[in-house]
Amino acid sequence: MPNGLSNEMSPSPPGPVSLRQRIHDILEYGSEHDPVTRLVNTILVTLILLNVAAFAAETMPDVGPRYRNLFELFNLVSVAIFSVEYVLRLWSCTEMPLLRAQRPWRARLKFAMRPLLIIDLIAILPFYLGFLIGVDLRVLRVLRLFRFLKLARYSPALVALGRVIANERRALFGALLVMLALLLFASSGMYFIERNVQPEVFGSIPSAAWWALATLTTVGYGDVTPVTSLGKAFGGLIMIFGLGMFALPIGIIATGFSQEANRREFVITWGMVARVPLFAQLEATVVARIGAMLYSRSYVAGEPIMRIGDDADAMFFISSGEVAVETGEGQVRLGEGDFFGEMALLYRRRREHNVTAVTNCRLLVLDKLDFERLCHSEPELVSHVRRVAEARLKAGKTKR
Amino acid sequence: MPNGLSNEMSPSPPGPVSLRQRIHDILEYGSEHDPVTRLVNTILVTLILLNVAAFAAETMPDVGPRYRNLFELFNLVSVAIFSVEYVLRLWSCTEMPLLRAQRPWRARLKFAMRPLLIIDLIAILPFYLGFLIGVDLRVLRVLRLFRFLKLARYSPALVALGRVIANERRALFGALLVMLALLLFASSGMYFIERNVQPEVFGSIPSAAWWALATLTTVGYGDVTPVTSLGKAFGGLIMIFGLGMFALPIGIIATGFSQEANRREFVITWGMVARVPLFAQLEATVVARIGAMLYSRSYVAGEPIMRIGDDADAMFFISSGEVAVETGEGQVRLGEGDFFGEMALLYRRRREHNVTAVTNCRLLVLDKLDFERLCHSEPELVSHVRRVAEARLKAGKTKR
Amino acid sequence: MPNGLSNEMSPSPPGPVSLRQRIHDILEYGSEHDPVTRLVNTILVTLILLNVAAFAAETMPDVGPRYRNLFELFNLVSVAIFSVEYVLRLWSCTEMPLLRAQRPWRARLKFAMRPLLIIDLIAILPFYLGFLIGVDLRVLRVLRLFRFLKLARYSPALVALGRVIANERRALFGALLVMLALLLFASSGMYFIERNVQPEVFGSIPSAAWWALATLTTVGYGDVTPVTSLGKAFGGLIMIFGLGMFALPIGIIATGFSQEANRREFVITWGMVARVPLFAQLEATVVARIGAMLYSRSYVAGEPIMRIGDDADAMFFISSGEVAVETGEGQVRLGEGDFFGEMALLYRRRREHNVTAVTNCRLLVLDKLDFERLCHSEPELVSHVRRVAEARLKAGKTKR
Amino acid sequence: MPNGLSNEMSPSPPGPVSLRQRIHDILEYGSEHDPVTRLVNTILVTLILLNVAAFAAETMPDVGPRYRNLFELFNLVSVAIFSVEYVLRLWSCTEMPLLRAQRPWRARLKFAMRPLLIIDLIAILPFYLGFLIGVDLRVLRVLRLFRFLKLARYSPALVALGRVIANERRALFGALLVMLALLLFASSGMYFIERNVQPEVFGSIPSAAWWALATLTTVGYGDVTPVTSLGKAFGGLIMIFGLGMFALPIGIIATGFSQEANRREFVITWGMVARVPLFAQLEATVVARIGAMLYSRSYVAGEPIMRIGDDADAMFFISSGEVAVETGEGQVRLGEGDFFGEMALLYRRRREHNVTAVTNCRLLVLDKLDFERLCHSEPELVSHVRRVAEARLKAGKTKR
Repeated sequence: MPNGLSNEMSPSPPGPVSLRQRIHDILEYGSEHDPVTRLVNTILVTLILLNVAAFAAETMPDVGPRYRNLFELFNLVSVAIFSVEYVLRLWSCTEMPLLRAQRPWRARLKFAMRPLLIIDLIAILPFYLGFLIGVDLRVLRVLRLFRFLKLARYSPALVALGRVIANERRALFGALLVMLALLLFASSGMYFIERNVQPEVFGSIPSAAWWALATLTTVGYGDVTPVTSLGKAFGGLIMIFGLGMFALPIGIIATGFSQEANRREFVITWGMVARVPLFAQLEATVVARIGAMLYSRSYVAGEPIMRIGDDADAMFFISSGEVAVETGEGQVRLGEGDFFGEMALLYRRRREHNVTAVTNCRLLVLDKLDFERLCHSEPELVSHVRRVAEARLKAGKTKR
Repeated sequence: MPNGLSNEMSPSPPGPVSLRQRIHDILEYGSEHDPVTRLVNTILVTLILLNVAAFAAETMPDVGPRYRNLFELFNLVSVAIFSVEYVLRLWSCTEMPLLRAQRPWRARLKFAMRPLLIIDLIAILPFYLGFLIGVDLRVLRVLRLFRFLKLARYSPALVALGRVIANERRALFGALLVMLALLLFASSGMYFIERNVQPEVFGSIPSAAWWALATLTTVGYGDVTPVTSLGKAFGGLIMIFGLGMFALPIGIIATGFSQEANRREFVITWGMVARVPLFAQLEATVVARIGAMLYSRSYVAGEPIMRIGDDADAMFFISSGEVAVETGEGQVRLGEGDFFGEMALLYRRRREHNVTAVTNCRLLVLDKLDFERLCHSEPELVSHVRRVAEARLKAGKTKR
Repeated sequence: MPNGLSNEMSPSPPGPVSLRQRIHDILEYGSEHDPVTRLVNTILVTLILLNVAAFAAETMPDVGPRYRNLFELFNLVSVAIFSVEYVLRLWSCTEMPLLRAQRPWRARLKFAMRPLLIIDLIAILPFYLGFLIGVDLRVLRVLRLFRFLKLARYSPALVALGRVIANERRALFGALLVMLALLLFASSGMYFIERNVQPEVFGSIPSAAWWALATLTTVGYGDVTPVTSLGKAFGGLIMIFGLGMFALPIGIIATGFSQEANRREFVITWGMVARVPLFAQLEATVVARIGAMLYSRSYVAGEPIMRIGDDADAMFFISSGEVAVETGEGQVRLGEGDFFGEMALLYRRRREHNVTAVTNCRLLVLDKLDFERLCHSEPELVSHVRRVAEARLKAGKTKR
Repeated sequence: MPNGLSNEMSPSPPGPVSLRQRIHDILEYGSEHDPVTRLVNTILVTLILLNVAAFAAETMPDVGPRYRNLFELFNLVSVAIFSVEYVLRLWSCTEMPLLRAQRPWRARLKFAMRPLLIIDLIAILPFYLGFLIGVDLRVLRVLRLFRFLKLARYSPALVALGRVIANERRALFGALLVMLALLLFASSGMYFIERNVQPEVFGSIPSAAWWALATLTTVGYGDVTPVTSLGKAFGGLIMIFGLGMFALPIGIIATGFSQEANRREFVITWGMVARVPLFAQLEATVVARIGAMLYSRSYVAGEPIMRIGDDADAMFFISSGEVAVETGEGQVRLGEGDFFGEMALLYRRRREHNVTAVTNCRLLVLDKLDFERLCHSEPELVSHVRRVAEARLKAGKTKR
């Protein structure tokens, strides 16, 4: 049974790591435990922030012209570093388990099409375009702002924010519609009330909309305010509506958050999914779909993960750390890249082993219902899981 | 049993569809899968938005007079299109299952009384009134704003927003009362403090209310601010109260949302209910009441809907898609308009069949408790469900 | 068993109702089904609102002096009506079940000490004071604002708002402390940065606090803004802190609401509690404590309330409507003022009867845990419930 | 069994309390029931608030110079009182159970390193520094603001606020990133649109950021507003984004609160943990870790705490009050410092005793899962619990 339980598709043995592998790990996995990775990340984040600061500072009349050479130099250095980063990412991406099976150039092309890589490209492209084909630098300079978006790579919580907004997009669109209706009502109303008294600011509905928007969003610049009694009364009503309008998106987003938050540590980085060999053979689009189904849970050393007799509600992939499975003949250890808990899902049984975390570890969890959806959309993946499971079962039975 | 399970009130066979039926489907069901429907909807939504933009632009002094003819032409075209839309809706509404049983003109009259149709009418009526009986166009032009409300048809989430506000109306009214009390307190207080210093803005309580409202809602125009130390101290206190006042409606609405959100996909369009033949025989008011009880759930192809032995907590109506019921002799397919799961509710038993989604499908769900309420208020409907259920049972028993 | 089940302390038989009883019902119970009550309430609410409007309008320079006589007359009429209302409330309060046992004048004194009655008194007292002992009317006029608080009687949701704020008072106090710390930080910081540049507005910390408060609460009048670069940078930081500060009370109150909302229809009016004869014999303070434990649930006609075999988690008091208890020998009806469900709590058994709502009805629910708390604090009340329960049991057994 | 159940590590018998012990109790435990403690706390809180008020008032041009001597005197008195408080805290801290085992000066040094004590020191240090080594008082005076932070000791809810923010720090950081991106977008956009029209306020991106921040946070001073049509349209868009940006932190914090709130009375003061003798032998850092695992529950007199047969989900430490354990031979009383409920956790059994609150009492609860974590990280602590449990068991068995 020990043999059966250890996944036959285990990651490459921890022998000497190639330079390309090392660079890939540093740039893509972002492990917090590796000092070199931490250093590289810190340098890149700092450089991004400095670039944005320089972009803003350059527009200041008393700074921009004076230190023009300095800014140019800094830009040159930044482009150089970002270019090296971009090339290294492309070069090392063939180490990614998901792309390993493909021909290097095809893999790199696929990798270069990812949103984050496209941002990386736009961040450096203007420089080369200006240099090579002599396009006017002034227009392209704005594209430097894309460098800020490179930060997205370093905040996995952004993914969660995006997911909440995507989930609630219909309700948010409804709230926007309510706001537009209010805006139309407020600006038309004020236009009819004050167009003769203050023709310069309420002389048309689009003009009045400036006041209406500032009031409904409670920004309230005060550069335009009603002066008649009727206008003030109407304005007061609009303020109160504004309060309610405020409440809609906040209520929607707060609700979305509390639903996401029930899936604690819901942010799965690409690196975590890529570490699971089972997914390495899949199309990138399929992995993306699975990634959306997974969520992650952390366990401290010694914490029980499942117990005999528990309901089977999920299967687990080990993203990092080690777990111990108690079998009749003792313990079997499973490590990074292995999976367990699939038997109970496949055969709709209760848990038949105790599993405990040996080290602190992070597991990717696939819910029962999501597993059943996969059964229909990815029959190959599931049949592979089934084969491994049956091999484990046989190994176990043979032994006994 | 297959015969028993297929609903005897199945929709008209998928033979050649009449033009009227086709127009009705395009205008009322809004299926996202039909390209013609999508095109028609896109055109209508664009036209509505353009109308609102034109309404606003016409008031601009440097645009309105100059392009008057263009605006008039655009209005003419819009009214023509909206009129055609209105007439087609009225003409084809006799295809609606709920109205099919009634005489055409009675059905159309009933249909014309619906809120959305009344909005459609108000959106075009002013033009004809101005044309026919020579009423002054200036006043009627404001009614064009009603065209914006035609958008309501295209955002089902608005219904959910409305329901949340309706559910929480008592708490919101309480919050409004708190706000009025604070407003009274703030404006009276500031009136007594600063009426002698700034008589022109704090000279009366209604004047002071303008400041108080702008402060309590955190709009803060700044056109009126206290100048004395006591006034500023009092103003600071009011600002802090304003924060709390803000929190009340947001807290109320956020709570309402999170309760609605537990009923995922709670928005039921009229078209979805109308597709269920069982409801076709009911009074429109009763259908409205049932519509408020239903909520909808989506299932992907292959997903299990119920399993043998599950608790029976709801019955299901198929709004779109196909499901498979596993019986002793094989599978029975149920499609759009059929219902299932009623046996376990009627006889308070556990589920006796596995039911699985064959295609992606959308089901209308009627909770057990709501079903029991229906038993009391609509005995005929339930006795019909019972008859169908018993016919199914007998068919099943005969076969075996 | 029918005898046993009907509560021996049933309310007075529906014979001819005395005038005092009728007035009491109209003024205190506020039934929505009685047209006279509805009329009286509408008149009183309108009068309150008109009084507040008159109070504000009187301060307007072009309105107050001109219509002084009209305002005086209106005030006279209002005081007359409010005085009649106050006297009638006091006179009829002896009909209140809770006070019925006491001597009339003692009961009235107790009743007059209630907060709502004190507000009623303050609303009319200034007039008589000014009239009788010649106090300067100007100062007392402000007390007319108390008339607005008379509205509290008509919005039961206010009670819920108050409860949420009371429950979360510690967290809200913590948020206030955070805000004060931020205020101190912001105003001290800006004082040090801009005191030399704008001495007239940032010349002292209290002056700077005016700006800091307007910024932290996002009111942002704009009458005072920093002008130096450092000041603007610091101001921007304070704005972002302001956003976070905003989030604290909203988050706290939203959470409090969603917890209260799980107790649907949590607002219990005094009248609803007073209708339960069991509570009529208790001290008012005890009733208040019980009132805080109860919550109310509405059932539609025909809805099941409990079923045989259910867990016993609460006992019920009928506030309005009628329920049917199914016993071995048929149905027993219970009406307003009766209670049921106590057996299963007293003897920790499962439900032994089916109980169904006969008419739409409203029940007061007492949770199991609250019941057990009552057992300790109000042993007499519980021993009474026990006596009734045992009488019912015996009656049932005798019959069989 | 009674002997077995009473904890052998019970607190010192309630004999005469030493002065040092009394001072320690007054200053550190903050019992609400002791009038002297309440008085001392009231004086200290008032003094802190007066100090902050004096600090602000001193900067007012018409107050500061005039009452300089008064302010100096008040400062002198305050420093004297705070110094006495500080010295007394240090002197009496050796009474703290956790520090009792150590040598007095080592204990005091450890105690002085705590954050609250460091604040206490900073609050008085500037005075002595200025006095002793003649540093310029002007700079050090700012440090007086630290006196405000002394209030932190008196609001345990602050701890909960801090915990929510710490838990949600990743999501809040993501929200900050979104805000920075929006800020960059808004200020760059407005810079390009209006830099030529209003060069003095939109002449550089940092200048435009002042407007962008005031708009995105809805502060809206109005000192800078766009004037061109394009600028106003862009500004309106930014206002709407501002609404959404507002919603993010509020949604995040509201969610965090509602999760914390499920752990009712989650704030554990140091004094409550220190009262449990079991923890007295542990390292302060370990106690801090345990403190983070505990939460507190209040029970009223007579309320059941656990019942025979319940699932064992936690063990309990008595922080104040008394409970009764029903054993075969009668009741055993447990008081402050005792613990119970550990047997069922150690041996994974169901509850075997009824435990009821005798007085109102406050228990510290340690969840089953946290208990199991402790088993791994603090084996000594758990083996001690096990020893006590086994002693109790043996005592019980011997008796029978």
